[in-house]
Amino acid sequence: MALNMDVLLGFFHTFLTQFQTPTLAFLLGGMLAAALGSKLDIPDAIYRFCVFMLLMRIGIQGGMEIREGDIGAMLLPALFSAVIGMTIVVLGWLTLARLRGVRMDDALATAGLFGAVSASTMAAGMFMLEDEGIFFEAWVPALYPFMDIPALVLAIVLANLYLSKKNGGSGQRVAIWPIVKESLQGPALSAMLLGLAIGLFTRPEVVFEGFYDLLFRGLLTVLMVTMGIEAWQRLSELRKVAHWYIAYAFVMPIVHGLIGFGLGYIAHLLAGFSPGGVILLAIIAASSSDISGPPTLRAGIPTANPSSYIGSSTGVGTPVAIAICIPLFLILGQAVFDL
Amino acid sequence: MALNMDVLLGFFHTFLTQFQTPTLAFLLGGMLAAALGSKLDIPDAIYRFCVFMLLMRIGIQGGMEIREGDIGAMLLPALFSAVIGMTIVVLGWLTLARLRGVRMDDALATAGLFGAVSASTMAAGMFMLEDEGIFFEAWVPALYPFMDIPALVLAIVLANLYLSKKNGGSGQRVAIWPIVKESLQGPALSAMLLGLAIGLFTRPEVVFEGFYDLLFRGLLTVLMVTMGIEAWQRLSELRKVAHWYIAYAFVMPIVHGLIGFGLGYIAHLLAGFSPGGVILLAIIAASSSDISGPPTLRAGIPTANPSSYIGSSTGVGTPVAIAICIPLFLILGQAVFDL
Amino acid sequence: MALNMDVLLGFFHTFLTQFQTPTLAFLLGGMLAAALGSKLDIPDAIYRFCVFMLLMRIGIQGGMEIREGDIGAMLLPALFSAVIGMTIVVLGWLTLARLRGVRMDDALATAGLFGAVSASTMAAGMFMLEDEGIFFEAWVPALYPFMDIPALVLAIVLANLYLSKKNGGSGQRVAIWPIVKESLQGPALSAMLLGLAIGLFTRPEVVFEGFYDLLFRGLLTVLMVTMGIEAWQRLSELRKVAHWYIAYAFVMPIVHGLIGFGLGYIAHLLAGFSPGGVILLAIIAASSSDISGPPTLRAGIPTANPSSYIGSSTGVGTPVAIAICIPLFLILGQAVFDL
Repeated sequence: MALNMDVLLGFFHTFLTQFQTPTLAFLLGGMLAAALGSKLDIPDAIYRFCVFMLLMRIGIQGGMEIREGDIGAMLLPALFSAVIGMTIVVLGWLTLARLRGVRMDDALATAGLFGAVSASTMAAGMFMLEDEGIFFEAWVPALYPFMDIPALVLAIVLANLYLSKKNGGSGQRVAIWPIVKESLQGPALSAMLLGLAIGLFTRPEVVFEGFYDLLFRGLLTVLMVTMGIEAWQRLSELRKVAHWYIAYAFVMPIVHGLIGFGLGYIAHLLAGFSPGGVILLAIIAASSSDISGPPTLRAGIPTANPSSYIGSSTGVGTPVAIAICIPLFLILGQAVFDL
Repeated sequence: MALNMDVLLGFFHTFLTQFQTPTLAFLLGGMLAAALGSKLDIPDAIYRFCVFMLLMRIGIQGGMEIREGDIGAMLLPALFSAVIGMTIVVLGWLTLARLRGVRMDDALATAGLFGAVSASTMAAGMFMLEDEGIFFEAWVPALYPFMDIPALVLAIVLANLYLSKKNGGSGQRVAIWPIVKESLQGPALSAMLLGLAIGLFTRPEVVFEGFYDLLFRGLLTVLMVTMGIEAWQRLSELRKVAHWYIAYAFVMPIVHGLIGFGLGYIAHLLAGFSPGGVILLAIIAASSSDISGPPTLRAGIPTANPSSYIGSSTGVGTPVAIAICIPLFLILGQAVFDL
Repeated sequence: MALNMDVLLGFFHTFLTQFQTPTLAFLLGGMLAAALGSKLDIPDAIYRFCVFMLLMRIGIQGGMEIREGDIGAMLLPALFSAVIGMTIVVLGWLTLARLRGVRMDDALATAGLFGAVSASTMAAGMFMLEDEGIFFEAWVPALYPFMDIPALVLAIVLANLYLSKKNGGSGQRVAIWPIVKESLQGPALSAMLLGLAIGLFTRPEVVFEGFYDLLFRGLLTVLMVTMGIEAWQRLSELRKVAHWYIAYAFVMPIVHGLIGFGLGYIAHLLAGFSPGGVILLAIIAASSSDISGPPTLRAGIPTANPSSYIGSSTGVGTPVAIAICIPLFLILGQAVFDL
């Protein structure tokens, strides 16, 4: 009993410590500033540049380490990533889409965004693991597209099948390749793939250390402020749609993260996936897309209301993933793996 | 006599040395480039990002040091800051507003802007003190709003009372809170307050040193080039209004700085305010707002002509504050405090 | 014979190594991303800021070293730079302009752009020489305007004489000073001249090392990605004009670079111009303008079709200069000077 109390106290202590890390503090600071009506704004060009820098850094590092790494070890986690992405969409279809006042196409678009991945949440998770000195394989961030693309594809395919059936259509086939291509060509995935290629095939060590890695943490804080402001603004859009979106966006990142943690743990047992990798996979699963997902969905499910899916993801899902899921899965990992 | 000659030579030497410091050199370089018709321009997004970075750095540092500091020592300087801000407005009302061809509302708007504070002039002053190795309390930059807000509020209230009386109005009350709120919500003060909160309540040491502080001096030079270009362009607008504005904008920063120095010196005697703090307070008093003040004034005194107050402040006041007042009050401080 | 084989193998080895340097890799990466339809984009504000930073860094360094340097040594290379710039225009007039389907004014505008200089190609060349540890005089980048301006002036004068004659005009004089002024006032040359002045007359060592030089290599990689994307997009414009432009833009950078290398070698023999300086002069000669040249030409030869000259320079000339000429002249210099 006394032990349980200690565990609980330790939990709260770790939790509160995480709130003092710059990443969370800047996110909450941005939200607070927006809530207080501040005219603070980060120019859009700076925001897009931060995203580019972040993903190049993640990509280059991944590429450099894959060069010497054992790529076979990536197979099971990559497969599990695809399973997680698709499970999240199916879960959304079984839960959110059945609720009163929720339209099927809006629900599927929302589930697709929650199955997709947020580069900045992932970066914040990597930052936290590095800070705690917890090792993870450098290729873990490269699991991103393996979760992102199946989730978006499945959501768009299901929505179009539904719309086609509803409109009395002949159940025409939905082309999958254009959705995959659109995802890979988006600015976020493109930057990460470009970085991967540069890390794999060239010798970028000097610019990596003296520029991309040097500015990484700082630019992440700028990004967090921007995302905090954006989250607050998007939150108000959610008032226009059914309240179920708020409940879904608040609870499901935790559920998705637990699924990620569970499958990651199986990969740990079967293929020696590192504890840090399991934690990061849970964070990636908990994250919902805010940069690359929305344009793909807008093109793929044009009838869906962006207020519902962007509001849920950017307004609630991302803050929950960063402020709750990151410390939560760190604590869970530390408990499970005795780190 | 020989001693006086030495003092004078020493004065000119210090003065010329300051012109070689990057801050001044980049400001004058920007003005020169604009004067020669250069198409050199710093994109607006970069300018706004530099301002954000500068004020976050100032805020975070202030917050981190206040954490361990003696906040009671700030009371008298904060009170004096408010007195300085309001004295500047009253002075403008007694001088500029009485001159031939100067409209009362234009004069009050101009005096309000000169009572308000320029974050970049303040940053340039901090940079110079750090370079000279002169200590100042880390909370001195946090005096900013204590001078800025009373000046803007008093200028807007006086202008509205005047306009209301002129229009035969019933002397309706001017709401003060919206002006205070507008000031606090502006991008400059918001960023500094956000930085303060982050410095106070979290542990941002790593990103502070590795990002905000690392880039501070360099981004200040970029800001100085932009402000030099802007100053030259605004100068031409001043030709459209009464020439008294040029005289006011050239002379008054020195007068305002002397008032700041005098009250700072009293705080030094009464409450142990540091010599570096006295110099920085004089520089803050000498500065005139260029980022956050103009929109507040535009909303608060809509009848005033922006060419008069923005032209005076950005075109003449800021260059005088940076290029003349910063070295002047450094020399004065060194002489008075025997630094 | 065995020796020749070794030389050839060494050549290919050096060549392939250069492809792994970050500069080239990022350029090719940007082209590849654009070719694959990626929506990766670097905001225009960031691109312009990178150019500003690059040229300030080059200018400041040049200014700081000229301070202690022997400016007399610059005379012959400066004269040769002007000769190279004008020779390139005359060569274009003798070759490209005579080809079937090529309009005289388009050809002269194109030749003017190839005679003018690309700041980013020059920076990539400097980067490579610094990496290889090959010394060059710090004033070599300051040869830029001595080649740039004569080329643009001659191209515009020749085109206007031709147009005036064609239109039965009286052969009116073309004003040269406005073209020179326009070039000097362009954002690229302005930034370099501002940097030169700051390096010459002030003490910018701290911000130079801690900011401009620190970020130089990293920002160059960002610029290379942008230029790669831009090159690919411009390439498609070339399809609309005569195919001769592609041939010209592919072959002539090498020819221009050889002329630069030859004259540089003469300066080496006559005036002790450094081997690194000879290589850099060849790279400057091989480069074609992409930032400052086009607006000057658009104003100076309004009848010329921008698709022809911008397409040739940005779409083909710059990639050839960076990816082929930089390694080529490095190898040539190493062979000739036994470095």
